Amino acid sequence: MAEVERKFLVVDVPEGLGDGAALRQAYLAIDGDVEVRVRDEDGAFTLTVKGGEGIERTEVEVALDAARFDELWPLGGERRIEKVRHRVPLGGDLVAEVDRYAGALDGLSVVEVEFPDRAAADAFTAPDWFGEELTGRAGWSNADLARHGRPAA
Amino acid sequence: MAEVERKFLVVDVPEGLGDGAALRQAYLAIDGDVEVRVRDEDGAFTLTVKGGEGIERTEVEVALDAARFDELWPLGGERRIEKVRHRVPLGGDLVAEVDRYAGALDGLSVVEVEFPDRAAADAFTAPDWFGEELTGRAGWSNADLARHGRPAA
Repeated sequence: MAEVERKFLVVDVPEGLGDGAALRQAYLAIDGDVEVRVRDEDGAFTLTVKGGEGIERTEVEVALDAARFDELWPLGGERRIEKVRHRVPLGGDLVAEVDRYAGALDGLSVVEVEFPDRAAADAFTAPDWFGEELTGRAGWSNADLARHGRPAA
Repeated sequence: MAEVERKFLVVDVPEGLGDGAALRQAYLAIDGDVEVRVRDEDGAFTLTVKGGEGIERTEVEVALDAARFDELWPLGGERRIEKVRHRVPLGGDLVAEVDRYAGALDGLSVVEVEFPDRAAADAFTAPDWFGEELTGRAGWSNADLARHGRPAA
């Protein structure tokens, strides 16, 4: 499917988010605009291929069993991300995914919202607790964060 | 699983191989020693991640449905391979996979044999119709053939 989403920095994470889901992901290959990663979300394992640039990207996900995940995970080397994800309903079928990073990126929080189409993305008004918009900004993809850490700017 | 295999050129393809299976594959990402490809083998779709170098490699395969395959295929761009694969029993549970390339690599034929372990690979005596050994030789992986065509040497 084509993915339409916007991403924002979160400076003051809202209170009462609950426990969230523990995520770890490793980037197996990053080649041009194609990224291949594996993810462990509370014991549910997936492999995801993303391709293309900007607000609309191709994204294909397949489920993995634990054995395949365990074989693939080391291929990511140091290109790893750990975070806790909280899903916050925004109304109108929209959900904010708040990611609070751990490990090397401890202290960083971002929020992503996925939209049914480009028009809905353009019409979106961000809640007050959303910070600076990061959509399409160099260095803020998870793949870049995994490789290079948090951007200086 | 770890894959132990040897690869050889085939100059004179044996007669009577039958129809074989039509394969097409596209390389979505090639990053260091990690390769990610999709394959269509007579309508059976897979995504494969290979990592590591030489005679033993990590290889993990997952099944894809047609919709996911169709989304991923274009991400390979021109890095595509077409071939017809014939499986030839060699005795002792060994099978020779003879690949006859089509498209840009028309005329090229190679054979691969997979072994249960390194000792079996070392003990293998190639049949007369096997040509020059290509195992581990630069430029002869399918990923390299897809990117650069047949090596000059």
